[in-house]
Amino acid sequence: MTTTQLTSEIRKKQSFLCVGLDIDLNKIPKFLLEKEDPIFEFNKAIIDATHDVTVAYKPNIAFYEAYGIKGWKALDKTIRYLNEKYPDVFTIADAKRGDIGNTASMYAKAFFEDLNFDSVTVAPYMGRDSVEPFLNFENKHTILLALTSNNGAYDFQTKQLEGRELYKEVLEVSKTYANSNRLMYVVGATKASYFTEIRKIVPNAFLLVPGVGAQGGSLDEVCKNGISENVGLLINSTRGIIYASNKEDFAEVARNEALKLQQQMQAYL
Amino acid sequence: MTTTQLTSEIRKKQSFLCVGLDIDLNKIPKFLLEKEDPIFEFNKAIIDATHDVTVAYKPNIAFYEAYGIKGWKALDKTIRYLNEKYPDVFTIADAKRGDIGNTASMYAKAFFEDLNFDSVTVAPYMGRDSVEPFLNFENKHTILLALTSNNGAYDFQTKQLEGRELYKEVLEVSKTYANSNRLMYVVGATKASYFTEIRKIVPNAFLLVPGVGAQGGSLDEVCKNGISENVGLLINSTRGIIYASNKEDFAEVARNEALKLQQQMQAYL
Repeated sequence: MTTTQLTSEIRKKQSFLCVGLDIDLNKIPKFLLEKEDPIFEFNKAIIDATHDVTVAYKPNIAFYEAYGIKGWKALDKTIRYLNEKYPDVFTIADAKRGDIGNTASMYAKAFFEDLNFDSVTVAPYMGRDSVEPFLNFENKHTILLALTSNNGAYDFQTKQLEGRELYKEVLEVSKTYANSNRLMYVVGATKASYFTEIRKIVPNAFLLVPGVGAQGGSLDEVCKNGISENVGLLINSTRGIIYASNKEDFAEVARNEALKLQQQMQAYL
Repeated sequence: MTTTQLTSEIRKKQSFLCVGLDIDLNKIPKFLLEKEDPIFEFNKAIIDATHDVTVAYKPNIAFYEAYGIKGWKALDKTIRYLNEKYPDVFTIADAKRGDIGNTASMYAKAFFEDLNFDSVTVAPYMGRDSVEPFLNFENKHTILLALTSNNGAYDFQTKQLEGRELYKEVLEVSKTYANSNRLMYVVGATKASYFTEIRKIVPNAFLLVPGVGAQGGSLDEVCKNGISENVGLLINSTRGIIYASNKEDFAEVARNEALKLQQQMQAYL
């Protein structure tokens, strides 16, 4: 999917909502545990109930990996379901990978080709030759961690690296990478005041924004400071939507929560 | 495994060699491709042939992930084989993971509990709360990326962050993390001149050193500048050992290459 298509989907659905699919078997409704593949059944129900107000889905790969082969099968089924039934939805493998050339290519192949995700999150610490192998893939997007929403972000990301904060250096340097037009960035919503600064460096890049809702960020502040001409925002919510109810009505309740966010978003479109 | 046990294994085998198990089906001997699980058969033969001169094995997870469920099964069989047949060997999941609290715990659980690796490599960019969940596990080790062996390391790692290079800041800050005694560090051998500096900050921590051999680092320089009282070095070689031959004799040739490195290493012990 191109960013032009993504922007057009956003305008059509009047939503830049991304729903996180971080599946914890302790949190999903009990009755699903009797099914053959509870993770996939849960995801399918959430997707079916929310797809018309959602432009992107983001499984965090850790949650699947933690269930071993069963988890990978559920991930595989989920992404196939999305690609077959809702091909206009943008898909994000939240993997935060980062390794050198050769190995980065293997990760890129796994997520972009085998699983056919539209995008993958990547860590910047190892620099250019850990990112460019991902950027080689046409119509695929690499979402680089810039400023994350956790407290640990203050350990290094906001410290001054040769005159500017490390996260700004990451943004600037990454613009010089080959095929940098395929870059997007993770920017935590808990630091909405930084959005103005970030837009000076990457005026039109898509920003994936976690941390709205459960993690405490303000949707309003993010939208005001972060929105660009092509919208350029994907705002993620996970727990506030998928775990809003753990009863039989979980999908319906999830839809209501997604709808609330979509209704707030359309005011900015 | 404790670091005391690791040092004792190193002294017993007179080796601090780590063999990388980065399996590429295009590079392994053709006759293995007819087997039911070529990746595992290859690993098993390499391990059986090299275990007495090797203290650690390091599968890079990307190579397994790239083969999907088949790859995960091969990884699972490989680590089980190592743990059952050679429990005194130190095992490293080279995963370079990095994510926040909740998610980091899922990754830690996957590698430390489900797969029962002794250690996992972790990226530092997201800071304290992305590393400490790994450090919670007793007798397990978290190998933090400090200074990597690729060119991209110059993008950020060697730049000045508030008065000292970022990689030094990573070393210093990580020492304040809870259970920091369970930390080890990745330090690329292509920058052997940095080892003296690094030893000033972490005098006794184990350093996992990739980049000797194929990536161009000098074993001699690393040993001279990097060795500590408890040895504190694990020097990795992958391609120079496991792909030294792709014929029927691959395991025997791999053993000879491992033996050569072990013989160089014993001079420093």
